[in-house]
Amino acid sequence: MRAKTPSESLTVLTDIVLPGETNYLDNLFGGELLARMDRACSIAARRHSRRIVVTASVNHVAFEKSVPVGSVVTIEAKVSRAFKSSMEIYVDVWIEDRQSGSKTKVNEGIYTFVAVDETGKPVEIPQIAPETDLEKTRYDGALRRKQLSLVLAGKMKPDDATELKALFT
Amino acid sequence: MRAKTPSESLTVLTDIVLPGETNYLDNLFGGELLARMDRACSIAARRHSRRIVVTASVNHVAFEKSVPVGSVVTIEAKVSRAFKSSMEIYVDVWIEDRQSGSKTKVNEGIYTFVAVDETGKPVEIPQIAPETDLEKTRYDGALRRKQLSLVLAGKMKPDDATELKALFT
Amino acid sequence: MRAKTPSESLTVLTDIVLPGETNYLDNLFGGELLARMDRACSIAARRHSRRIVVTASVNHVAFEKSVPVGSVVTIEAKVSRAFKSSMEIYVDVWIEDRQSGSKTKVNEGIYTFVAVDETGKPVEIPQIAPETDLEKTRYDGALRRKQLSLVLAGKMKPDDATELKALFT
Amino acid sequence: MRAKTPSESLTVLTDIVLPGETNYLDNLFGGELLARMDRACSIAARRHSRRIVVTASVNHVAFEKSVPVGSVVTIEAKVSRAFKSSMEIYVDVWIEDRQSGSKTKVNEGIYTFVAVDETGKPVEIPQIAPETDLEKTRYDGALRRKQLSLVLAGKMKPDDATELKALFT
Amino acid sequence: MRAKTPSESLTVLTDIVLPGETNYLDNLFGGELLARMDRACSIAARRHSRRIVVTASVNHVAFEKSVPVGSVVTIEAKVSRAFKSSMEIYVDVWIEDRQSGSKTKVNEGIYTFVAVDETGKPVEIPQIAPETDLEKTRYDGALRRKQLSLVLAGKMKPDDATELKALFT
Amino acid sequence: MRAKTPSESLTVLTDIVLPGETNYLDNLFGGELLARMDRACSIAARRHSRRIVVTASVNHVAFEKSVPVGSVVTIEAKVSRAFKSSMEIYVDVWIEDRQSGSKTKVNEGIYTFVAVDETGKPVEIPQIAPETDLEKTRYDGALRRKQLSLVLAGKMKPDDATELKALFT
Repeated sequence: MRAKTPSESLTVLTDIVLPGETNYLDNLFGGELLARMDRACSIAARRHSRRIVVTASVNHVAFEKSVPVGSVVTIEAKVSRAFKSSMEIYVDVWIEDRQSGSKTKVNEGIYTFVAVDETGKPVEIPQIAPETDLEKTRYDGALRRKQLSLVLAGKMKPDDATELKALFT
Repeated sequence: MRAKTPSESLTVLTDIVLPGETNYLDNLFGGELLARMDRACSIAARRHSRRIVVTASVNHVAFEKSVPVGSVVTIEAKVSRAFKSSMEIYVDVWIEDRQSGSKTKVNEGIYTFVAVDETGKPVEIPQIAPETDLEKTRYDGALRRKQLSLVLAGKMKPDDATELKALFT
Repeated sequence: MRAKTPSESLTVLTDIVLPGETNYLDNLFGGELLARMDRACSIAARRHSRRIVVTASVNHVAFEKSVPVGSVVTIEAKVSRAFKSSMEIYVDVWIEDRQSGSKTKVNEGIYTFVAVDETGKPVEIPQIAPETDLEKTRYDGALRRKQLSLVLAGKMKPDDATELKALFT
Repeated sequence: MRAKTPSESLTVLTDIVLPGETNYLDNLFGGELLARMDRACSIAARRHSRRIVVTASVNHVAFEKSVPVGSVVTIEAKVSRAFKSSMEIYVDVWIEDRQSGSKTKVNEGIYTFVAVDETGKPVEIPQIAPETDLEKTRYDGALRRKQLSLVLAGKMKPDDATELKALFT
Repeated sequence: MRAKTPSESLTVLTDIVLPGETNYLDNLFGGELLARMDRACSIAARRHSRRIVVTASVNHVAFEKSVPVGSVVTIEAKVSRAFKSSMEIYVDVWIEDRQSGSKTKVNEGIYTFVAVDETGKPVEIPQIAPETDLEKTRYDGALRRKQLSLVLAGKMKPDDATELKALFT
Repeated sequence: MRAKTPSESLTVLTDIVLPGETNYLDNLFGGELLARMDRACSIAARRHSRRIVVTASVNHVAFEKSVPVGSVVTIEAKVSRAFKSSMEIYVDVWIEDRQSGSKTKVNEGIYTFVAVDETGKPVEIPQIAPETDLEKTRYDGALRRKQLSLVLAGKMKPDDATELKALFT
């Protein structure tokens, strides 16, 4: 199986924020944003693996800035690293100023998806060959985040999480 | 005001079709697709004009193929021509095969938006400088479609629609 | 097959505009209105043909006035002309003043639907016998609009669009 | 204030049942139908009173038949009787067979609305002059139902509910 | 079949009111609240009967106070009495003050559900053994309300509604 | 400010899964579940702090089992630890078997919220006094997770994350 670049799975979801999607402070409701990010990540995972994919976990989402009603929101998702049958997807969220056109990052998230066959059994997927510096940094961190996830879930002993351990010792 | 290229307003909205968005034949409900296309067009119009924009008309939408539940749908909208304060936006809709990754065009639409100031008064906007062959063809046809729209609405006499008339004589 | 009158397919969809259905100017979101019009037209097409129907195209929708939140919106759809298996549906949209009860037209649209059997194959449908003056005008214009649609889609040569040509020569 | 007929407030809401509006038996979800009925009744109450109206109570809704996905549902609401500032609205729900066009009643409900001014204070409204036999029957029963509602809410002693009492003695 | 207590079917649905769920007075839309109450009642009915359940009727819902956008709404549903295969469910609705935490009752409703097997045939269900004073009062009133429902639907003669009659004589 | 127990912020959101909320495998759509969990967590955060609260981050959500359409889903959220103005909220998700009534855990998540005043400035909040063993375990882990979040965001050096470091050395 040929390795693929992150760009091959790039998924762009540009949309506006209507009043029916806000919280009572007139900003985009956090849950609605999580749902849109999940949609974009699932498409990126599918484009990389060309398989049925299911959400395995949300590893981290940081809400840095609120998104006011009427904003144009751009969500960009790319597979950052592939393991045997699971993939880490990085998703960045931007809003843009109507008058100047300048973009501001508001949000960033990391999701994990698993590729499965028709019976729900995990299947092997292509690996990732990162190209840009940012893609390489995210690729390198992915193994650490995977170990962390396993440690937190009690499925790996801290002592076996060699990559993660290296951070602290 | 500097003319802009269609690419400067390019808006991509990639999303999946969930069961809650289908008709009773398990295909994407036509009205839901019209709504998503309207969202993408309004962002393209805003990116071109950097103004508040309002939908003036849907000039034509052709539903060529149905879109089954579970599809990945990509909507691409670009301003094809600008007039004094109104813009024609062309929007193309694709689905992609999960296994091969090949794309199929399912739908095409033409919308018109008007740029307004805070009081709702139409304002002048930048013109369009088409680059590719397809952009040039669409640019050329836009005046004809505008005349047609005015004739159909009874706001222009067929005899004054010179561009349109040329098609038939 | 007995011809039917437009009234036999008349479909009325009266509803209010809730805040969850507005754009960020607190008016009914254009895409939501397009979706409601599509629903009403599909019922009119089904009432005329008594068949499964699918949206073939939106031929024209003109947004004349915006619809503020809290409005009562009345959508009236009627088949204006039937061809072999396709139908043109005219849809008019009104809002009414709460205090005086007077109605204002805000929107008008033309949709085309096709009647199909269980396998998706187009089937023959009853013709239309228009009764009122408005119904007759719309009936007469329908052939012109059909030719126009075919010409725009590159499926008919302008020279063969005899009805349409007559407008300009 | 001139009395009005029930027909003057007649509100028709025809719509289809999409998969996103069903329960897990593939029938229209009860709560969604209650919401649509509430929308239709509020418009009828507003047309009768030409005032701001608020839901006071749902007096009775009987679900007689389930409504399968894909159905065309017609909701008809009319004011059946007006009191000082409150109105009783009767709402009937029908589905129609696609092939024969015959209609079947699936549901019937009674709602009460109150007309208020901008400060939320109840205001006087026109009375009802019933015309058809059915309208007269519903008009006659309305006082009984109002007394019943007050008795159940502990706001009237059974002994004072003269109309209601007459049913049983 | 062992009788069950109302607490065994207690269902709590706590949620917030987002702007997309309001009417044009910025309060929770009545229809949306009816839908949420229906969801909670159906779960209570299912927990009591451990069967498939369908809404048979809404017997009464009184809207006492409006629910402003941003409120935390708590819906509590419990089976108040079981008959052969139908159940009466009582549902209470509260909002709470953010700063003091004190709760205010805004709404109360009574729904009837029927337990059915896979073919839709009504099946026998456990009876109710009320525990608290309020549960006993509601249990006692349920037969009266059932008779009333039958009388209003013309399925029982007022003279046979012995429990109900006793209220007035 | 008196410390509070986790139980004081306990929030229960029980609801069913309707077809309009599923993915194309007929299971609850991941994004919809993330949104419901966010709603429950925001209420728990508000009950603990009695302040306006905003989502700061999703720290971890693990999707262990899929949730089929028609399921009864119970979401339980409680504040696990409070810092100066931020709170960690633990949320557990269960489905229950209709026939046996037995519950299965399908999902678990950790969210962080911040309490703010009317101007959006963070405000001090009460601390948490855990009671049960599970509450104590979650309380103890919270500081580690907070450090981890800061390290991942590049806002703390691994070397300063003393609690976290202790895991690996």
